Amino acid sequence: MKKKSHKHKLSSSKAGLPPGDLVYRGEVYTENKSVNLLSFNTKSFEKIDSDNVELILKKVNPDSFNWINLVGLHNTDVISKIGYHFNIHPLVLEDVLNTEHRPKAEESESYLFFTLKMFKKQEIDSEENDYEQVSILLGKNYIITFQEKEGDVLDTIREKLADENSKLRKNNIDYLFYRIIDSIVDSYYKMIEDLGDKIEHLEDSIYLNANSQHYKMAQDLRRELIFLRKSVYPLREAIAKMTKENSTGLISEDTQRYFTDVYDHSIHIIETIETYRDLTSGLMDLYMTSVSNKMNEIMKVLTIISTIFIPITFIAGIYGMNFKFMPELNHRWGYPIALFLMLGVVVVMLIFFKKRKWF
Amino acid sequence: MKKKSHKHKLSSSKAGLPPGDLVYRGEVYTENKSVNLLSFNTKSFEKIDSDNVELILKKVNPDSFNWINLVGLHNTDVISKIGYHFNIHPLVLEDVLNTEHRPKAEESESYLFFTLKMFKKQEIDSEENDYEQVSILLGKNYIITFQEKEGDVLDTIREKLADENSKLRKNNIDYLFYRIIDSIVDSYYKMIEDLGDKIEHLEDSIYLNANSQHYKMAQDLRRELIFLRKSVYPLREAIAKMTKENSTGLISEDTQRYFTDVYDHSIHIIETIETYRDLTSGLMDLYMTSVSNKMNEIMKVLTIISTIFIPITFIAGIYGMNFKFMPELNHRWGYPIALFLMLGVVVVMLIFFKKRKWF
Amino acid sequence: MKKKSHKHKLSSSKAGLPPGDLVYRGEVYTENKSVNLLSFNTKSFEKIDSDNVELILKKVNPDSFNWINLVGLHNTDVISKIGYHFNIHPLVLEDVLNTEHRPKAEESESYLFFTLKMFKKQEIDSEENDYEQVSILLGKNYIITFQEKEGDVLDTIREKLADENSKLRKNNIDYLFYRIIDSIVDSYYKMIEDLGDKIEHLEDSIYLNANSQHYKMAQDLRRELIFLRKSVYPLREAIAKMTKENSTGLISEDTQRYFTDVYDHSIHIIETIETYRDLTSGLMDLYMTSVSNKMNEIMKVLTIISTIFIPITFIAGIYGMNFKFMPELNHRWGYPIALFLMLGVVVVMLIFFKKRKWF
Amino acid sequence: MKKKSHKHKLSSSKAGLPPGDLVYRGEVYTENKSVNLLSFNTKSFEKIDSDNVELILKKVNPDSFNWINLVGLHNTDVISKIGYHFNIHPLVLEDVLNTEHRPKAEESESYLFFTLKMFKKQEIDSEENDYEQVSILLGKNYIITFQEKEGDVLDTIREKLADENSKLRKNNIDYLFYRIIDSIVDSYYKMIEDLGDKIEHLEDSIYLNANSQHYKMAQDLRRELIFLRKSVYPLREAIAKMTKENSTGLISEDTQRYFTDVYDHSIHIIETIETYRDLTSGLMDLYMTSVSNKMNEIMKVLTIISTIFIPITFIAGIYGMNFKFMPELNHRWGYPIALFLMLGVVVVMLIFFKKRKWF
Amino acid sequence: MKKKSHKHKLSSSKAGLPPGDLVYRGEVYTENKSVNLLSFNTKSFEKIDSDNVELILKKVNPDSFNWINLVGLHNTDVISKIGYHFNIHPLVLEDVLNTEHRPKAEESESYLFFTLKMFKKQEIDSEENDYEQVSILLGKNYIITFQEKEGDVLDTIREKLADENSKLRKNNIDYLFYRIIDSIVDSYYKMIEDLGDKIEHLEDSIYLNANSQHYKMAQDLRRELIFLRKSVYPLREAIAKMTKENSTGLISEDTQRYFTDVYDHSIHIIETIETYRDLTSGLMDLYMTSVSNKMNEIMKVLTIISTIFIPITFIAGIYGMNFKFMPELNHRWGYPIALFLMLGVVVVMLIFFKKRKWF
Repeated sequence: MKKKSHKHKLSSSKAGLPPGDLVYRGEVYTENKSVNLLSFNTKSFEKIDSDNVELILKKVNPDSFNWINLVGLHNTDVISKIGYHFNIHPLVLEDVLNTEHRPKAEESESYLFFTLKMFKKQEIDSEENDYEQVSILLGKNYIITFQEKEGDVLDTIREKLADENSKLRKNNIDYLFYRIIDSIVDSYYKMIEDLGDKIEHLEDSIYLNANSQHYKMAQDLRRELIFLRKSVYPLREAIAKMTKENSTGLISEDTQRYFTDVYDHSIHIIETIETYRDLTSGLMDLYMTSVSNKMNEIMKVLTIISTIFIPITFIAGIYGMNFKFMPELNHRWGYPIALFLMLGVVVVMLIFFKKRKWF
Repeated sequence: MKKKSHKHKLSSSKAGLPPGDLVYRGEVYTENKSVNLLSFNTKSFEKIDSDNVELILKKVNPDSFNWINLVGLHNTDVISKIGYHFNIHPLVLEDVLNTEHRPKAEESESYLFFTLKMFKKQEIDSEENDYEQVSILLGKNYIITFQEKEGDVLDTIREKLADENSKLRKNNIDYLFYRIIDSIVDSYYKMIEDLGDKIEHLEDSIYLNANSQHYKMAQDLRRELIFLRKSVYPLREAIAKMTKENSTGLISEDTQRYFTDVYDHSIHIIETIETYRDLTSGLMDLYMTSVSNKMNEIMKVLTIISTIFIPITFIAGIYGMNFKFMPELNHRWGYPIALFLMLGVVVVMLIFFKKRKWF
Repeated sequence: MKKKSHKHKLSSSKAGLPPGDLVYRGEVYTENKSVNLLSFNTKSFEKIDSDNVELILKKVNPDSFNWINLVGLHNTDVISKIGYHFNIHPLVLEDVLNTEHRPKAEESESYLFFTLKMFKKQEIDSEENDYEQVSILLGKNYIITFQEKEGDVLDTIREKLADENSKLRKNNIDYLFYRIIDSIVDSYYKMIEDLGDKIEHLEDSIYLNANSQHYKMAQDLRRELIFLRKSVYPLREAIAKMTKENSTGLISEDTQRYFTDVYDHSIHIIETIETYRDLTSGLMDLYMTSVSNKMNEIMKVLTIISTIFIPITFIAGIYGMNFKFMPELNHRWGYPIALFLMLGVVVVMLIFFKKRKWF
Repeated sequence: MKKKSHKHKLSSSKAGLPPGDLVYRGEVYTENKSVNLLSFNTKSFEKIDSDNVELILKKVNPDSFNWINLVGLHNTDVISKIGYHFNIHPLVLEDVLNTEHRPKAEESESYLFFTLKMFKKQEIDSEENDYEQVSILLGKNYIITFQEKEGDVLDTIREKLADENSKLRKNNIDYLFYRIIDSIVDSYYKMIEDLGDKIEHLEDSIYLNANSQHYKMAQDLRRELIFLRKSVYPLREAIAKMTKENSTGLISEDTQRYFTDVYDHSIHIIETIETYRDLTSGLMDLYMTSVSNKMNEIMKVLTIISTIFIPITFIAGIYGMNFKFMPELNHRWGYPIALFLMLGVVVVMLIFFKKRKWF
Repeated sequence: MKKKSHKHKLSSSKAGLPPGDLVYRGEVYTENKSVNLLSFNTKSFEKIDSDNVELILKKVNPDSFNWINLVGLHNTDVISKIGYHFNIHPLVLEDVLNTEHRPKAEESESYLFFTLKMFKKQEIDSEENDYEQVSILLGKNYIITFQEKEGDVLDTIREKLADENSKLRKNNIDYLFYRIIDSIVDSYYKMIEDLGDKIEHLEDSIYLNANSQHYKMAQDLRRELIFLRKSVYPLREAIAKMTKENSTGLISEDTQRYFTDVYDHSIHIIETIETYRDLTSGLMDLYMTSVSNKMNEIMKVLTIISTIFIPITFIAGIYGMNFKFMPELNHRWGYPIALFLMLGVVVVMLIFFKKRKWF
């Protein structure tokens, strides 16, 4: 994530091109060209997977609820066809293709559009977090989800949908819409929990023995948090829109109540990110202080050693002089007295340093 | 508290699970399975404690005010039964179980829900503060409180309730609701007072003799304040809701007046926390400055000592040379003159340093 | 003030106690138990001072304007009696007793309540500022002021009240209310002026010769400003309330105009405090830079001295070696040449350092 | 850009002069005096380029849409004539001439005025970014654009206009207005992308080997971002105006939808700038830490070397003394023992340093 | 300006004094006691200058527009008379006398009051900026301006007024009001331009050769900007009031359009000040880094020199020992070998340092 976080693909950078021509400038993660349709109502449940988008669109059942899922945003022709079928505004389709889009909710006459980042659960060893842009369209009786990569956090929902007794089957499609967004927002918690562990671990390491690697790690954490904050902040606002009366009437009052809950989660995530930013900047201060303290300690000891030897070396220098008339040199106890003198100087200095609490 | 403060249990992290299934992911602090009911009106007062929640719910007197208190959030079946009996929304019950929930007030058709942190009074020696999540439900004639651990700050209220002449017995149940929240908010003061003492004490210690332990202590204080701030900030907003006309009409105008007072307290607490944050960051600067000043002082003295000895050691070196033709060496007063020369150099240097105010 | 500023007495910390029982937890500054009544109208002016609060309350003239002044908040029984007589809400009386209360204005049906800090003019030598909590109640025909300590900034007002021709006598009692608050807010100016002088003085001292005492002084200034800011910020909002139409109608439109002026003053004070905070943090940077510059200067000079002597000491060391075959030693001009060599080395080094602008 | 960014020409600084006299105080970049007119409707497309502004204005076709483009703001007489012809307020014309004007949208009775900065695409090698002030006037059937320099990012639009089947020809002139602003805003992305690359590159360089040049580069980046932020922040507000119902009715509801998209882009740009500011200040910290770490490492090694030699030099000094009675000197193994002693001292010190992890 | 900027005269500090008594506590800059009246309409123009304010007030022509200008705020009696004549509220007159008043606009029934700082153009050599408080009153057919000192930026306006064909003569008096404020706001640009030049110049100086004087200069710039910001921030709000419908109707819709322009200028000034604050704090960082880099460079070179000589001095010390049995001393090539050994040590160390890129 680190590199990606500040190397934006900026896919909207197409100065002069008219809007409406679908061009995907993100990376291609999958060869998949099939579209997935889940068609369900209280009684029936059908699942179709096909390369042929026209077939899928024909299968869309006006009397059931339909969830179309597309993986791989480079399939712009498929997206165009879906857009044409459901009468979606070209700018919305453009937003779907923009993998750097900030989270946003937008309502049109006949559908609700929601786009946000999804974080996938990671293997324990992996250092990098895996995320992708997900767009969700809620219509009267359909939901369309667009994903960058294969694999998501929605499998539990799909399983539940197959179960006739699940709440998902008994409720309207707006409840499924809520459950999808709720699952994606919940995927942030894992991400944040990982960051919290990293911060705690790093702090312990720095206390133990600060080294320059730790600073780099704190910098990386800081950058991840900057990126995460940018992804989550607008989310709050977008979800807030879901909790209010929509002009489309696509979201029922009951489901609005559930979105209030998601809204609480998004605020909790934002507050935790802010707290982590505080803690991370504290880590950097801690690193600086630790390194500086350690360095000071070393320099102090070294300087004290030097300072103790310098005067006695001087005394040795005195009696190394070659003057003819130096009575001490010929004295019987000259040498031992000189050594005692040196010892005396050392002791006095040590006492002096000790008294001043220099070591 | 330190560790806990940034190792969130994030109990809401259950991606894909439907809401409504009560799952408690917090720690279990108590074996207690009993529920406590206080049933009272102006004339009578009854207290029941039982393992059997059905029994308790049967004892709820529709003509009295009833305060049900549950300790131990892992008793999810008990909470379910209470929720079913009083017709509480599943999401509210989930919020009750979420021990990391930010303070919030929520009104429904028939009840008011309030959740916040409670700080318990501590033994003097204990370093750690003890806190827990408390949820309070106010209905037409009942209050239900949910606690994580045994022991709370509400015993004085319970005693007063038993007293027929107390204001609590003479007023409606919304007054009890106010008194409970007021007591919990008051519990923050003790916490803050402790922090204030710690800050003051730490400052004095740093002025006296800064050591690296102080920095760690300041860091810990800083983290405690970050955590506390996160807990108290949303509280203001939650209490503010209580001071306004509620659609439920559960809180009378008289009691709203009392909540204004609690609101003032919450603002005071927030302002004090902000002030302490300022002071704590001042402490860190103070530590850095103290350490740096002390270090500078040491290095200066040591370097001055070295610098004084280096030139005279050089003079000794000169007369330690073995040139054949060095007239000074054979001079009768060569040695004493050399010593005087050295003394002269030292005196000149000392004067020079003194003049420049280097020591 | 320093210590007091972050050792809050937190008198509202009485968890579990019902509101309405007047308990004073502040310090007791005075033995005074008397209450002071100024009763006046356009024609008459009466002043009564008595230990007997009942007597005072009897003397309150319904056809005049009455200003009751109480000193010493520990006289809770007197405050209770006054509260009972004027029908004041128990929570307001509690606020009167809370000497840590933030500035606030509150209107009730029949009175306006205003509480704020008052700064007293100080002897020149005194380092500490003297302040206290003052509460003011404005009713239809009375004003009640509650003070912690003896002595205030209102004596000029009392003198003017005695003067039949003064504006105070010709206007309604809301004008007196304005004049009291105006006088108290004006008392902040003196405080701020002192701080400005201290900052300026400190800056000059640091430029002259920074020492560690200056840092402590800057820290103290910073803390005073943090405290002051906390006291003044809410004041603005409180005064703003006075400038708007009150539901009580106690403040006439004319007087509102005057409060606009006080409002301007409060904003000016806040802006000045913010400016001083900026300047104070600049002072700390200045201190750090000064100390660091001075230290650097010292270390540089000392290191240059060492560096110059080290090579020539080495040369002396060379010719102090005892090798049998060292031709230079026996050379007639060996010694002077060696000395010249040393001189040469010193000169070359000095030129090198000079060129690099190291001194 | 660097220099320009804080050397404002401040062309509005003409204290005392009446508004309405057109005076251009910016730099003159072009000798061009011709004005360019594109006149088009669904069927026809005409392009005229002439030195004679009167001719151009005569050619303005009331039944077509007309886009007049003027390059070189020093041609104040031409601007006056255009202003007179289209009845433009003198203050708007003044704003056109002010090359330091902040982005703004202003609506009048008969036209919409929009001014902002345009960034031109740069050669790869060029370090400096090229930007200029562009003003756009939208009237009932005309658009007038004013540019400082030759060359812009609008050529694609001009080409599309010549194409009868393009959306531009099929839509109203407000769509062209949107396309012009969209193209200019898109030009910011390139600019930002470059900055992102610079930041990333700089970070890698600092990690590799920090040198003082890097600090200057980070400072320059910081200043560019300060400048860019100042240019983009007000843009958001200006574009927001376009998305709301205009009193002029010049922008249709359909086009407003497109401006929402531009609005999203402007927010994305602002957020990216903020992120880059964070990253840049992180770069500075990184530089400081790297330099300080490297310096510390050097000093530590050097000091360790000195400290090891000082005690053994002292020993050599001892046996260089000229006392008559020094038994060791005459001992057969005195010399080798002394050397071993020195070696021993060195080994002990190395072990000591190693144990303390000093190297 | 420096000193003045944080030594507020705080003329409103008159605790206890009733409002309405005009007391001037600012400095007295002029001996001038005369008042200046410009009386004009489309046809006539008259200019009167007199010591006698009553005379001036008599000359005020109800059928013309009248601009009264007073210099020297210590002439409180004159101000009183003017206030009495035009029926101005005492608090407004007090605001006129308060030379530390923050910019503000206030409307009354019959007049508009505007007060702000005016910056005068400076001689090139002068370091200090010259500013003063100016208050402007707009009535139905009069404008009164109050200045602290002689000399202003309004002379161009006076000249234009004398010119029958000027816009000023053809418009209403509110247009003159706009022109006065516009001229004063424009005077800020010069001030800001100077600051921009100073910042740029200072930056170049620091890059060239940082010395402690630069830090003081950056500090002074910072303080000037703090002061300037305090003066300009409230200005925006004050001017915004002029752009809205006034209850007095003194400002026509046409003139409101002009004030929008002044409003843009004030925002531009504020944004530039903010940018300069950023740049100035960048300057301080730059200074610190430069000084620290330079210092590090010096210390590094010095320490490297010492470190190179210490081992070879030790070797010299070895062969300066007086052991009887030191075979090397008697060796024919002992001395040259020792010298070569030393040379070898130096070369090895230089290579080592070079490899580690220490110089």
